[in-house]
Amino acid sequence: MTLRNIRLVFAYDGSRYHGWQRQNNGLTIQAVIEERLQLMMQSPVKLLASGRTDAGVHALNQVCNFKTPSQIPVDTLKRGLNALLPPDILVKEATVVPLEFHSRYRAKSKLYEYRILNRQDPDIFRRNVLWHIRFPLDVETMSECLSIIEGTHDFSAFKSSGSANTDPVRTILSNCIESDKDGVLRIIVEGNGFLRHMVRNIVGTLVETGTGRMDLKRFAEVLESGDRRMAGRKAPPQGLFLVAVKY
Amino acid sequence: MTLRNIRLVFAYDGSRYHGWQRQNNGLTIQAVIEERLQLMMQSPVKLLASGRTDAGVHALNQVCNFKTPSQIPVDTLKRGLNALLPPDILVKEATVVPLEFHSRYRAKSKLYEYRILNRQDPDIFRRNVLWHIRFPLDVETMSECLSIIEGTHDFSAFKSSGSANTDPVRTILSNCIESDKDGVLRIIVEGNGFLRHMVRNIVGTLVETGTGRMDLKRFAEVLESGDRRMAGRKAPPQGLFLVAVKY
Repeated sequence: MTLRNIRLVFAYDGSRYHGWQRQNNGLTIQAVIEERLQLMMQSPVKLLASGRTDAGVHALNQVCNFKTPSQIPVDTLKRGLNALLPPDILVKEATVVPLEFHSRYRAKSKLYEYRILNRQDPDIFRRNVLWHIRFPLDVETMSECLSIIEGTHDFSAFKSSGSANTDPVRTILSNCIESDKDGVLRIIVEGNGFLRHMVRNIVGTLVETGTGRMDLKRFAEVLESGDRRMAGRKAPPQGLFLVAVKY
Repeated sequence: MTLRNIRLVFAYDGSRYHGWQRQNNGLTIQAVIEERLQLMMQSPVKLLASGRTDAGVHALNQVCNFKTPSQIPVDTLKRGLNALLPPDILVKEATVVPLEFHSRYRAKSKLYEYRILNRQDPDIFRRNVLWHIRFPLDVETMSECLSIIEGTHDFSAFKSSGSANTDPVRTILSNCIESDKDGVLRIIVEGNGFLRHMVRNIVGTLVETGTGRMDLKRFAEVLESGDRRMAGRKAPPQGLFLVAVKY
């Protein structure tokens, strides 16, 4: 029996789900996909992903892989799986990869984007994909603060308050803020890895610098302190997108 | 007791609702708004709208009015109502208007927009606001056909199959199709009035001309025939937006 390693790339709207990872209570993206995959493969499937996403967080390109004895052509797999999946999950690519490919361990970097709508009126049609902030944000100050996190740092100040004792050192490769004419700010961060809730905690703290509640010096102190209590509140999940995983 | 006539402009995402008009079964936009308005006014409210929208259809600017003895400032009304309304309904304007203003009878024209996503992959984040058509559409042919409906015609061929015996003559003031780089087509139609399902029936038939199943001559024959059975199928509701009502 020859095993094949199949790499799948998914986009999903996380609004309806309790995050990526399978759990006993609540609908998860992993469980929904695995169930459909098993229907097609006629055998159990263990789907590995580049990492979890939290409840309400979205993905444009979540990379996964699984091993299977099935010899189904990948184009058929892609088409069939898309026919079975609900309309908020999409298979974008299906390819056969070498057996040693591992979507989590082989990931070199990840790129996240956080989207804020900064204007008076909300956008009711995009309420699940934007954090609406009425108070005008100073994007220049936010950009300066964001540049401070570039490079290798101990990111304990931005870790999840209840997170385990993992190594808190991560490297941020690049980041920037873009703003468009509709009032949408995109905070783009690429790193070799992220602590749980790290992007949302950074964004929440950046917003405090954008409203003037915190200045550049203070932002640098928060990072250096390693103290989660000094940082701002966690940004809500619906603005966050996993954009790319690089190998 | 002095009555005031208050004009409200709403945007709503119709996805969750059984249309605008209050009914015994199913959540409607009118019922949700009236309930919140009554809470604020402390008295019964009868909200008049420029017209109904069907289940799943959206509005960018639905115009309504109601009469009330309440002397609440309109800015307070707007802010308060927005705080009470669910996140898929937004009050955009609240103004005091002359008592004779009637949002339905005084409407001179209405502008609708129908949005189609014409490309291979769906957009999972906009699945509730676009009709996804994979098959490539010939926009030029569709534009030519659309221009045929301009002017005053008997639109019986595009009326709702089960609709009552209302006068089927309407005047289309202008229309056009715009397409953007993401593959979104916007079919924009302004008229002095519309029969029930008329825009969706026109769009469904236009799509048949775009796929080559129907040509320009045939499209003109469908309009002239006054026969609903000759037209194409009704386009799904989620692509349709009530964009403006003019007085």
